[in-house]
Amino acid sequence: MSRADLSLQSCSIARAVAQVGDEWTIMILREMFLGSRRFDDFLRQTRMSSHLLSGRLKKLEALGVIRREKYSEHPPRSEYRLTAMGHDLWPVIIAFKQWGDRWLGDGDDAPVQIVHKGCGHVTHPQMTCPDCGQAMTAHDARAELTQSYENERQAARRHP
Amino acid sequence: MSRADLSLQSCSIARAVAQVGDEWTIMILREMFLGSRRFDDFLRQTRMSSHLLSGRLKKLEALGVIRREKYSEHPPRSEYRLTAMGHDLWPVIIAFKQWGDRWLGDGDDAPVQIVHKGCGHVTHPQMTCPDCGQAMTAHDARAELTQSYENERQAARRHP
Repeated sequence: MSRADLSLQSCSIARAVAQVGDEWTIMILREMFLGSRRFDDFLRQTRMSSHLLSGRLKKLEALGVIRREKYSEHPPRSEYRLTAMGHDLWPVIIAFKQWGDRWLGDGDDAPVQIVHKGCGHVTHPQMTCPDCGQAMTAHDARAELTQSYENERQAARRHP
Repeated sequence: MSRADLSLQSCSIARAVAQVGDEWTIMILREMFLGSRRFDDFLRQTRMSSHLLSGRLKKLEALGVIRREKYSEHPPRSEYRLTAMGHDLWPVIIAFKQWGDRWLGDGDDAPVQIVHKGCGHVTHPQMTCPDCGQAMTAHDARAELTQSYENERQAARRHP
């Protein structure tokens, strides 16, 4: 199954990773959340090839995750900004960061710390249940499938 | 730069995505969080090729994200379980799910709902500042870089 086919599954995780679940897209998003807006900055900080970078930026723009904004008319030059759809990917980046800091760190401080503007503290954002306010881990969650998704999964079991 | 090189960067996001930031790894993790443990179930539910699946499982086992557990001696058969390192990837999967539900849904209910065992409610976990208890989005966060990481980024600017 190709990446394109993943985007057609009912599962919203499959759909999401088909669009933005590759290492270079995540590196571009990291750069944008660190404040980079220009092609050359993405190129230098991610160390991607310009061909690869150009392809990913076009895809993200077509999807609506980023938009181009002209900052010079002569010569024509554009920079890239996150849209609301793009800003909404922040939890994905933070989740990767926290896992990397915890499990793949080299004993030094995390290279980037997150400051919560609201309270001014260095923070480690946690997945929390908005209903009761408790932090949640995998062990606190149970998945409930819709009947149509359950049917789809049973069909996959019967027809491998 | 190859995926292997990403794993050598100081940035913990780069390190994390070098190990688990590809669509097939995320699909395997989704399956495990849905309760699947066996090779054939991964194969049918993700629709990966068995070659690809086998390679990803070996990599995840070597990394310490999953472990194998024998469930039959004759014939020898193993199933796969998430380790603590693996369970700790739950926020990544949830973050992709919520973004997919919000931005790539087809208007129907999300195919999977998360129930918080603690309070019994269907929930949409949010990134929250544990210091003040407020939900956080990209707009509420400021990144602070360590001096050594800032130096590394400035060097990349000077030597493209």
